[in-house]
Amino acid sequence: MKGNVIVGQSGGPTAAINSSLAGVYRTAIERGAKKVYGMRNGIEGLLEERYVDLSEHITNDLDVELLKRTPAAYLGSCRFKLPEIHEDQSVYEKIFEILEKLDIEAFIYIGGNDSMDTIKKLSDYGILTGKTCKFVGAPKTIDNDLALTDHTPGFGSAAKYIGTSVKEIIRDGESLVYGKGLVTVVEIMGRNAGWLTGAACLAEGEDCEGPDMIYLPEIPFDIQKFVAKVKQLLEKKHSVVVAVSEGIKLEDGRYVCELGSSVDFVDAFGHKQLTGTANYLASLVAGEIGCKTRSIELSTLQRAGSHLASRVDILEAQQAGGAAVMAADEGDSGVMVVFERISDDPYQVKTEVKNVHKIANDERVVPREWVNEEGTYVTAEFKRYVRPLIQGDVSPVMVDGIPRHLRRPFKC
Amino acid sequence: MKGNVIVGQSGGPTAAINSSLAGVYRTAIERGAKKVYGMRNGIEGLLEERYVDLSEHITNDLDVELLKRTPAAYLGSCRFKLPEIHEDQSVYEKIFEILEKLDIEAFIYIGGNDSMDTIKKLSDYGILTGKTCKFVGAPKTIDNDLALTDHTPGFGSAAKYIGTSVKEIIRDGESLVYGKGLVTVVEIMGRNAGWLTGAACLAEGEDCEGPDMIYLPEIPFDIQKFVAKVKQLLEKKHSVVVAVSEGIKLEDGRYVCELGSSVDFVDAFGHKQLTGTANYLASLVAGEIGCKTRSIELSTLQRAGSHLASRVDILEAQQAGGAAVMAADEGDSGVMVVFERISDDPYQVKTEVKNVHKIANDERVVPREWVNEEGTYVTAEFKRYVRPLIQGDVSPVMVDGIPRHLRRPFKC
Repeated sequence: MKGNVIVGQSGGPTAAINSSLAGVYRTAIERGAKKVYGMRNGIEGLLEERYVDLSEHITNDLDVELLKRTPAAYLGSCRFKLPEIHEDQSVYEKIFEILEKLDIEAFIYIGGNDSMDTIKKLSDYGILTGKTCKFVGAPKTIDNDLALTDHTPGFGSAAKYIGTSVKEIIRDGESLVYGKGLVTVVEIMGRNAGWLTGAACLAEGEDCEGPDMIYLPEIPFDIQKFVAKVKQLLEKKHSVVVAVSEGIKLEDGRYVCELGSSVDFVDAFGHKQLTGTANYLASLVAGEIGCKTRSIELSTLQRAGSHLASRVDILEAQQAGGAAVMAADEGDSGVMVVFERISDDPYQVKTEVKNVHKIANDERVVPREWVNEEGTYVTAEFKRYVRPLIQGDVSPVMVDGIPRHLRRPFKC
Repeated sequence: MKGNVIVGQSGGPTAAINSSLAGVYRTAIERGAKKVYGMRNGIEGLLEERYVDLSEHITNDLDVELLKRTPAAYLGSCRFKLPEIHEDQSVYEKIFEILEKLDIEAFIYIGGNDSMDTIKKLSDYGILTGKTCKFVGAPKTIDNDLALTDHTPGFGSAAKYIGTSVKEIIRDGESLVYGKGLVTVVEIMGRNAGWLTGAACLAEGEDCEGPDMIYLPEIPFDIQKFVAKVKQLLEKKHSVVVAVSEGIKLEDGRYVCELGSSVDFVDAFGHKQLTGTANYLASLVAGEIGCKTRSIELSTLQRAGSHLASRVDILEAQQAGGAAVMAADEGDSGVMVVFERISDDPYQVKTEVKNVHKIANDERVVPREWVNEEGTYVTAEFKRYVRPLIQGDVSPVMVDGIPRHLRRPFKC
C-alpha cells in the first residue's frame, strides 16, 4: 500500500469487534500502510474530524493481544445512516475531503447491515465521482443475520456465552426444590433472527439435558401451546428451563413483550414501559400453573462477555479485518468479507468478498427446517452448524483477579 | 473415624458449594470414614430417607476436579426449618433414627444462616438426649453475611463474576453514543448486606474507572440526591454506570423495588408484580433526565457463574469442608468452620470453629465506615478486604467448547 488506511466500528458492540480492528491494523502495517487511522464513533465522528492514529495506542504485540480480549468498540460506535446520494451530496463531499486530506487509500468499516449500507453508498459515490479510495466492510454482529456469509464474527463468542450461562442456569434450577416446580424463562437477544436463541442448545451434553424448549422469533408463538407444554414437562421434572428470543411474536404479529405492557404499566412519569418477553411469560406461567417462576435476561452481558470468548470467533474476526485490508489493497471496493464453510468436521472455512449491494439491509434468518416441526427446539443441523463456532478459548489476561482490557486514553 | 459421615447442602446455590462437598468427601475418606453419604435436598430429603453413597458418584480425582467446577448444589438444596425442640420432638426422633441406622458419626451441613440453625438444633437435641453424633457446619453463601467469619465460601467467586461483568458492561456503555447520554443501572444480589454490590468496585483498574456509583442496602437511599448525582455525572461523561443492591430502601423503610409496583402493574391474572430495583431507577432517570437508560440484573448468573470462579474461593471452600469433618472427628459439635484473616498482603487466613449459637440467625453487614460519607461508593478498606478473595482462576474443563460439570445420574 502506498497511502493510508482508516477504520471504523459501527452498530452494537460484540466481544470480537476489536479483534477485527486488530486484524485491520496488523495487515495494514504489514502491507506498508504509512498510517492507520481509527475513526472515533465511526462515520459520525469522522464527519467531525475525530480520529486517532492507531499506532499511538497499539504499540506492541501485548497491546494487540489485549485489544483482541477487549469487548465493545474500542474506537466507539455509532448508528448513523448516510442520506441517499441523490438527496444530499454535501455529506459525501465532506467525507471525501477528509479522506483526501488524510491520504486514505482504504476505508474499512466493521459492522452489520447498516454499516454495509454505509460502505455501499460511499463506494457508489466514489465510483460516480471517479475517486480511487476503496471501501470494504468487515462483518460484525452477534445476531449472525448478515446475508451471503456462513456466519459473522461476534456470533461465536455470544453463542459460547449463552450456551455456558444457560447450562449454569439449568444446574441452578435443578438444585432448587419448590412444591409445584420451578420454571425459568431465559430471554436472549435477536429480534428477528433466532441464531443466538438457538445457541441455548449448546448447554446440552453428557452432563446436561439442555434447555427444555427453545423458541425462535422466526416461528409464530402460541401462548396456549406453550403453557400446555410447560405443564406437561412439570409432570416429569421439577425444574423446567425455556430459552426465548426477545423477538418472539404471536401469529397476529404482536410481540409477546407487548402483551405485558397492555396492562398499562407506567412509571412515575407516565411513560409506558415495555416489560420483557421472559418477564411476561414467567408471570403468565406463575398465574396459569401456580408454580414458582423466574425470568432471566442475558442482556448486554451476552455481547460483552469477552472473558468467555470463542477462540475460533476471535481469530476469524481478526482474519476478517485483515482480509478487508487485503481486498482493498488488491483493488476491491463496495464489498464485504464473507466466510464460506468448506466442511463442518473438520471445521474449515475460507474468506471471500461479496458485493455489498447484495448484503446491505438484508437479513438472514434461521432456516425453517433447522427447527423441529412443533417449533420448540432446534434440530441436529442447527447444532452441527453452531458447534464449531464456539470452539477454543481465549484466556483472559488476568490482573489482580479481573480480566485486563486495552487502555483507551481518549474518550469515545 | 470409625463410623460414617453424612453431608448435606442447603439454601441458595453458589459456585463454590460443591467444592466444600468435595472437601468433606476427601477428608472423610482420608480420616477413615467407611461411607460418606450425601443427603439429597438436605435435611428435607433425609427425612424421606433420600440419600446417596457419594463413592458411587465421585470415583476418581477427575470427578473431584469436576465437582469443584460444578455450580449449584450437586446433592440438591432445600429450605427447611426444623421446629423448636420443645415444640415437636418427633422430627428429631426420626432424624436420629435414620442417623443411627446409617451409623453416622459426623453430620456436616454446608449452608448459610438457616442451615446453621439446623446444626444448632440437631446438636442441642443430641446433647439433650446423650447421642454421640457430631454436627458441624461449613459456611456457604454468596451474600457473605455470616457472623464471626472473615468471609464465606461462595462470596469470592460471585464477587469476581460481578467485578468482571460490571467492567464489561462499562466498556459496552462507553462505546455507545446517545444524544443525552446513557445511564446503566446494574442490580446485584444481597437484600440486607451490601458485600456483593460493593464488589462492583473490582471493575476498577488502570484500564477502567469502575462504576460511577455504588449503593448498598445498609444505607438509606435518597432518590432525589441519586438523580441529581446522575445529572452531574452526565455533564462530564456520556456513559454512567451505577451498581445498586436489590435491597436498597428509602429512609422510611420502603424498598425501592416496591415503588415500581405502586403503579399497579398486574399481569394477565391480576397478580401484582414487583418490578426490579434497577428497572425502576432506570425508568425514573429516563423520565427525569430524558436520557437513554438500561437496567441489567445480574440475577442467577452471579451465583452460578462457575466458569469464572475465584481460585482462592474454590480452595477455601474445599478447605472449609475438610475442616468441618476434622472438627467433628476431633469431637466438636454445634460449631461452624470460620475463616480468620491473619493479613491482607500477603493474604493469609486460618480456619477455626465457632459456636453456632453465636452465628445462626445473625447477619453481618458492611461496616458504615467502609462506605463513603455520601453513601455512594465503597472505601479503600472495602477494596483491601475484597481484592484477595477473587485471586486466581479455576480453569473450566472445556468439552466441545462448553464447561463440563460432574454428571448427576440421580434426580435431586
